[in-house]
Amino acid sequence: MSQAAGTEIKRLAVLGIGLIGGSFALALKRAGRVARVVGFGRSRANLEQARSLAVIDEIAASPEQAVAGADCILLAMPVGAMAETFVRIAPHLAANAVLTDAGSTKQDVIAAARRGLGGRIGQFVPGHPIAGAEKSGAAAAQSGLYDGRNVILTPLPENSTATVAAVADLWRACGARIMEMTAAEHDRIFAAVSHLPHLAAFALVDELAGRPEAEVYFRHAGSGFRDFTRIAASSPEMWRDIAMANREALAAELDAYVSRLLCLRDALLAGDGQTLFDTFIRASRARANWAPGGTNLEDDE
Amino acid sequence: MSQAAGTEIKRLAVLGIGLIGGSFALALKRAGRVARVVGFGRSRANLEQARSLAVIDEIAASPEQAVAGADCILLAMPVGAMAETFVRIAPHLAANAVLTDAGSTKQDVIAAARRGLGGRIGQFVPGHPIAGAEKSGAAAAQSGLYDGRNVILTPLPENSTATVAAVADLWRACGARIMEMTAAEHDRIFAAVSHLPHLAAFALVDELAGRPEAEVYFRHAGSGFRDFTRIAASSPEMWRDIAMANREALAAELDAYVSRLLCLRDALLAGDGQTLFDTFIRASRARANWAPGGTNLEDDE
Repeated sequence: MSQAAGTEIKRLAVLGIGLIGGSFALALKRAGRVARVVGFGRSRANLEQARSLAVIDEIAASPEQAVAGADCILLAMPVGAMAETFVRIAPHLAANAVLTDAGSTKQDVIAAARRGLGGRIGQFVPGHPIAGAEKSGAAAAQSGLYDGRNVILTPLPENSTATVAAVADLWRACGARIMEMTAAEHDRIFAAVSHLPHLAAFALVDELAGRPEAEVYFRHAGSGFRDFTRIAASSPEMWRDIAMANREALAAELDAYVSRLLCLRDALLAGDGQTLFDTFIRASRARANWAPGGTNLEDDE
Repeated sequence: MSQAAGTEIKRLAVLGIGLIGGSFALALKRAGRVARVVGFGRSRANLEQARSLAVIDEIAASPEQAVAGADCILLAMPVGAMAETFVRIAPHLAANAVLTDAGSTKQDVIAAARRGLGGRIGQFVPGHPIAGAEKSGAAAAQSGLYDGRNVILTPLPENSTATVAAVADLWRACGARIMEMTAAEHDRIFAAVSHLPHLAAFALVDELAGRPEAEVYFRHAGSGFRDFTRIAASSPEMWRDIAMANREALAAELDAYVSRLLCLRDALLAGDGQTLFDTFIRASRARANWAPGGTNLEDDE
């Protein structure tokens, strides 16, 4: 693609036409920044629906076919499927094509991109839009999904400034705000504020669901449980991939969290109400002072 | 009070005029079931506000004065303050007075009631309305708070059937549904579905808030974090009291939860994606199949 800001993408290839990929296509269409969108994904029915909803204009038979002739490519499939995709598309990339991705982890995606893309790695600018992963499918796509949301880019040493600027410009055209950080920093932060809460919610629900009297527990669960466990309804496949992709940072966060829980347990058994109170008041102040960064947090990450 | 269903309370004493106590008074007023409400609480300003909002009709100078001549009494203060209250009010209870409470734990409240009320223990029917503990103060009280909510009663062997029926009848007049169980069963269930999630949310927020880069983590936290930690903004004092009051059941729940988290950690470090996937899919199915029991879950427990 041309790397000047505001220019049009002639052919956008989106690999993975779900909420994230579909909304990227719709947002760029809304901005008048793309002439033609070609999509590829695992589900033919979903691709047909994407085309009938004008999320995409053309269905590709393969990732190779999708990227052939594309000047911009978004990888928006689960992170576990990206490694194979990089390998398959590498020989078919145009020299001027710019690639980005929407994966929730970055170090593993970058490692896979280096292996798969080889000398073309400079064409790939890793990204993570902080938006909507709980709904899924092309039907959930919406042109305004990224309005006011953060998109994190973790540029590579091999990227030219112009290539990074071109990807940032596209996300801004989608309505998003750009933040840059290193991939390691990204993975460490999201292990703590996103991946750990997901595992902790899955773990609590599974613990209760496995009990003989599970029904009794669920019958009495209220709004605190509802909100604490909302993210436990997320995609098992997607979260397995994210957890595995970021496993070292996530295991470190689990260790820190378990240590904190065991301190509370010890305080309980010691009758030490002061330690509980000190923990609770620090947490309640921090939580009350926290204002979510996005203006549109209905269903992000 | 008269123990026939549908009769009027002449004098209702509410000790602790917050969302729970104030809403009980307003709901009984709405139902035409109470002639006069006298309130006592720690904060004079809150009591004045309760009176100016017609949540209560009269401010008592002490718990003793509040219960003198009352035919129905609700203890709606933090559970940590109930033991002293039982001791103080016992000598002033009318022989026909019925007592109940709104404490989030039951075995400890019952133990305190036995110590404080002595031979009058049969007049006390322990209860727990599953409704709104995050907002607080008389100004938050609303007549419809209990509509469609569950109220759990844990009757004592010393209660007469008529006394239990009278308390159940009052809560039904407030719009609530009555469920009965033992105090031990109550405490075990709520340790799992309410008290543990609160501690787990407090622990996560405190863990992040204590880091040198806390601000960076909070800046990138999104809607999953927001919902997972919503209950970490709850009252530190109230939750210290609840946790301490139910500490054995809660410590057992913490042990089970930590074990489950450590299984996930081990699976991560072993590269065992299947165990993660199996856990996540069981949890996501259970969570998706769970329908909250109350019709009005905006802000319960």
